[in-house]
Amino acid sequence: MADQSEKCFTHFDGDGNAVMVDVGGKVESERVAHAAGTITMSPEAFQKVKAGKMSKGDVLGIARIAGILAAKKVDDLIPLAHPLLITKVNIDFCLQDEDNSIEILATVGICGKTGVEMEALTAVSVAALTIYDMCKAVDKSMVISDIRLLKKTGGKSGTYIRKDV
Amino acid sequence: MADQSEKCFTHFDGDGNAVMVDVGGKVESERVAHAAGTITMSPEAFQKVKAGKMSKGDVLGIARIAGILAAKKVDDLIPLAHPLLITKVNIDFCLQDEDNSIEILATVGICGKTGVEMEALTAVSVAALTIYDMCKAVDKSMVISDIRLLKKTGGKSGTYIRKDV
Amino acid sequence: MADQSEKCFTHFDGDGNAVMVDVGGKVESERVAHAAGTITMSPEAFQKVKAGKMSKGDVLGIARIAGILAAKKVDDLIPLAHPLLITKVNIDFCLQDEDNSIEILATVGICGKTGVEMEALTAVSVAALTIYDMCKAVDKSMVISDIRLLKKTGGKSGTYIRKDV
Amino acid sequence: MADQSEKCFTHFDGDGNAVMVDVGGKVESERVAHAAGTITMSPEAFQKVKAGKMSKGDVLGIARIAGILAAKKVDDLIPLAHPLLITKVNIDFCLQDEDNSIEILATVGICGKTGVEMEALTAVSVAALTIYDMCKAVDKSMVISDIRLLKKTGGKSGTYIRKDV
Amino acid sequence: MADQSEKCFTHFDGDGNAVMVDVGGKVESERVAHAAGTITMSPEAFQKVKAGKMSKGDVLGIARIAGILAAKKVDDLIPLAHPLLITKVNIDFCLQDEDNSIEILATVGICGKTGVEMEALTAVSVAALTIYDMCKAVDKSMVISDIRLLKKTGGKSGTYIRKDV
Amino acid sequence: MADQSEKCFTHFDGDGNAVMVDVGGKVESERVAHAAGTITMSPEAFQKVKAGKMSKGDVLGIARIAGILAAKKVDDLIPLAHPLLITKVNIDFCLQDEDNSIEILATVGICGKTGVEMEALTAVSVAALTIYDMCKAVDKSMVISDIRLLKKTGGKSGTYIRKDV
Repeated sequence: MADQSEKCFTHFDGDGNAVMVDVGGKVESERVAHAAGTITMSPEAFQKVKAGKMSKGDVLGIARIAGILAAKKVDDLIPLAHPLLITKVNIDFCLQDEDNSIEILATVGICGKTGVEMEALTAVSVAALTIYDMCKAVDKSMVISDIRLLKKTGGKSGTYIRKDV
Repeated sequence: MADQSEKCFTHFDGDGNAVMVDVGGKVESERVAHAAGTITMSPEAFQKVKAGKMSKGDVLGIARIAGILAAKKVDDLIPLAHPLLITKVNIDFCLQDEDNSIEILATVGICGKTGVEMEALTAVSVAALTIYDMCKAVDKSMVISDIRLLKKTGGKSGTYIRKDV
Repeated sequence: MADQSEKCFTHFDGDGNAVMVDVGGKVESERVAHAAGTITMSPEAFQKVKAGKMSKGDVLGIARIAGILAAKKVDDLIPLAHPLLITKVNIDFCLQDEDNSIEILATVGICGKTGVEMEALTAVSVAALTIYDMCKAVDKSMVISDIRLLKKTGGKSGTYIRKDV
Repeated sequence: MADQSEKCFTHFDGDGNAVMVDVGGKVESERVAHAAGTITMSPEAFQKVKAGKMSKGDVLGIARIAGILAAKKVDDLIPLAHPLLITKVNIDFCLQDEDNSIEILATVGICGKTGVEMEALTAVSVAALTIYDMCKAVDKSMVISDIRLLKKTGGKSGTYIRKDV
Repeated sequence: MADQSEKCFTHFDGDGNAVMVDVGGKVESERVAHAAGTITMSPEAFQKVKAGKMSKGDVLGIARIAGILAAKKVDDLIPLAHPLLITKVNIDFCLQDEDNSIEILATVGICGKTGVEMEALTAVSVAALTIYDMCKAVDKSMVISDIRLLKKTGGKSGTYIRKDV
Repeated sequence: MADQSEKCFTHFDGDGNAVMVDVGGKVESERVAHAAGTITMSPEAFQKVKAGKMSKGDVLGIARIAGILAAKKVDDLIPLAHPLLITKVNIDFCLQDEDNSIEILATVGICGKTGVEMEALTAVSVAALTIYDMCKAVDKSMVISDIRLLKKTGGKSGTYIRKDV
C-alpha cells in the first residue's frame, strides 16, 4: 500500500506545471512494447476488407503503413513525449469473422532511455483510424475499442504484462 | 437493399489501387462532425486526474491541446485524407465516477468539399493517447474504447446520427 | 522573341531576394498536372517487384501511398511553394520488362489559385525514392530518371503539353 | 552466385507484410553516403540560374537549403525508413555549360545503426525539385535524371562504389 | 470605454476551456499583416553578416527562407491557430550599423476568414532565430527584441496601425 | 585578440556555401541551455492572463505546451540545425506586475554531440508567440523582447554565462 502512494504523475513539476521529464540520467536499454486494439464494423464492410486483403483494394496494407508512419510521429503528437529513435515497428491484423472485427497488434522496439508504449499505442490508433477512413463510405458506425498495452519489457520498471493477456 | 450493394470503398480505383479521390467537383458546404471515445483507468489514476482539473497538474487541459493540434494533422496521418481548412475544433471531457472513466467529445467544423469525420475521430484518439501518456506512471492498464462518430451534418450524403445517440 | 525576354524567375523580387509570390489576385480555376519518372533496376530486383505486385510484398502499393502523402507536403518541402488544398491524387506504375524499369505516373488536381505541377513531380519523386528504399538490399545501383511534367491544364498560362508526349 | 539468391527485400516479413525492420541489434558505426542527380533545362533558364549564382536571385542557394532540410525529413517521407540523427549534410552544384544542366551532389554522414543512402538521395531529389520550382516560369520542360548512389561507406555491408564512378 | 470591457480572450469557451474558435461564419477578405523585430549582435558578428550579404556565406538569405517556411507552419506551432492558405510572404532585412543590429520585416497576405498576424510574427521570429543559429559560433550574446505587429488590414476589425509606426 | 580572429561562421564551407556541419567526431556530453524572453502587454491583457492562471482560461499552460512542442521541432524550423534527442524541457513564467510583462524561461537538456541553445531559444519564442495569439483579441500592441541565452553548460566550448545574469 505504501509504494502505491509513491506513484505520481511524472509529467508535472512540484507546482503542477507540465514538463518534459528529465531522462538524461537514465541508461539506455533494449525496450519493446506490444499494444492492441479492435475495430468492429458491419458485415458488409468487413467482407469487403477481407476480400481486399486477398486481391485488390488492400485496406489493411495501407493501414499498416499509416500505423508505422505514426509510430515515428509520437513526439509531435503527444506533447510531453520524448523524441526517440525507434529501431523496429511491425503491425499485424487479425480478421475475426465471429463479430466482424479486426484486431490490430503493434510491436515497437528501441534501444533507448525511455519506453515505447506510446509508439505502440499510437501505431494501433492510427491504423484503426485509417481503416475507418477507408471504409466509411460503406459504414459510418464502426467503433474502435480496446486500445491497450499488452506487454512491455526493458527499462528500470522492468516487464509489464497485462493481466488478461 | 439495392442501393446497399452500390456502396464501395471510394479510396480505390477500378484496379484496386489507392487514390486520393477527386473532390474537385463537390460543392463547398457547412459541415460539422461530432465524435466521442472513452478512457477507463484505475480509481487511483482517475482521482488524480480529477484533482488536477481543479488545481494543479491539469492532464485534461493538455490532452485538449493535443487533440486540437491533431485535428489539424489529419491529412498527414491518414494517407488518403484530403487537406482541409477546418474552421472550428472543441473538445470536452466528462468525468464518470461510476467506472473511473473519462468520456472525450470532439466537435469539428468546416466549410469545405469533404467532411470532417476523420478530424473529429483523430482529435478524440490523440486526446485519449495523451491522457494515457500522462497517467501511465500510475496505471499502465488503461483502456481506450468506443471511439465512434456520433453525428455529422452537411455535404451531399446529409445528416448521419448514430443510432444509440 | 520579344515575349521570350519577358520571362523571369518569379520567386525573386527586384532586389533578387526570395519571396513567396503574391497569388492573392489570381482567380481560382480547375487545374490538373500530370508528371512522370522512371526507376531502372537490376533484372533480379525488377522480378521481385513484379512478383510482389501479384502476391505478397507489395513494393508498389507502398510507394503509391508515399507518393500521395508527399503530394500533401509540397509546401513544407519546397521553400517558396504555396500551401494548397489538392483535391485529387493518383499514381500509376507501368512495369517495363524490356529494360527492367518502372514508369511512375502521377496526376494531381485542384481548384485553386496556383498550379499543382510541383505536387505531381514531388509525388513521382518520393514514390521513386520509396521503391529505391525497399529494393536497395537487393540492388544499390538503381537509377531514377526522366522526372518531368507531361501536361498541365488550367490557370492563366493555360495548357502545357510536353512536346514528346 | 549462391549468395545472390539469398538477397531479399528486407522491408517485408515472411508473410509479405511491410515492417520497419529491426535494427536494434546492429552496431553503431560511422557511415557516409554520396548521391548525385542532374537537372537539364533550356539555355535561357540555365543562363539565368548561372547569373543568379553570381549576383542576385540565388536559385542554388535556396535549393541547397531545401535539400538539407529534406535530408532531415526522410523518416517522414519514406514509410519504412528509420528515424536517424544525421551528423552532416552538404550539397554541391556543378554547372555544366555543354548541355545546360546542373549536377547536384549530396553527402550525408552519421554515426548510427543504419545507412544514410536515402538521406543523400532525398537531398538530391528535393534540391532538384526546388530548382524546378524556381525556374518553371521560364521553362516547364526541365528534366531531372540520374538520381543515384555514388558511394557509401560504413556498416556491416561495407563500402559500395558505383561502377561508373 | 464601455466596449473596452467587452473584450475577452476568444480562445476560451464559457468554462475557460481552450477552443479553436469557430470562424466558419466569417467572410473571406483580403488581409495583410506586417510585423517586425530586431536582432542585436557584437560588431564582429555584425560585420561578418554584412560581408556575407555581399559575397559568400549569406546568413540573411538562409534566414529569409527559414522565415518563409515558418509562416507556413503556424497552425502546427501555435495550438489554437487556424490552418490557412497564405498567398504571399516576403521578408526584408535592414542592417543598422549604428548599433550592430538587423531589423527583420515580414509581410504576409491572404484572402481568408482569419488574419495573418501570427504568420507575420512567426516569420520574423524564426528568421531571427536562424540568424542567431548561424552566428552563435562568433557571438552567443545576441538579443532578439521588439517583435511586434506594425500593421494589419482587412477583416471585420479593420485596419490596425501601431502607434509608433 | 588573436583567437578572436579565428572565429568564423561554422555553417558555411570554404566557398561560402551553407552546410550542416559535421558533428560526427564530437563526443556526447551532458549539455543544458537556459534561455529567456519577455512579452509586454496592456494592463488589461496582463490582468486577464493573471486571472486565468488562477482559475479558468489558462493562457500560460497552453503557451508552455506550445514551447515544449517547439523545442522538439528545431531541426525542422532552423535549416542548418542538427536533429537531436532532447531529454528534458521545462518552461516557467514570471508575471511582472510592475510593467505588465511576463518573463518566459526555458531549460533544455540533452546528452548529445551538439548543444541545445537553439532548442531553449525556440521554446521561449514559440511560448511568447502563443501568448500573443491568445491575447491578441484584447491587445494587438504586445511586444516580445529580450530573447537571449542565459547560460549553457557542457560540450567542448564549456560553460557560457551571460554577463548580466
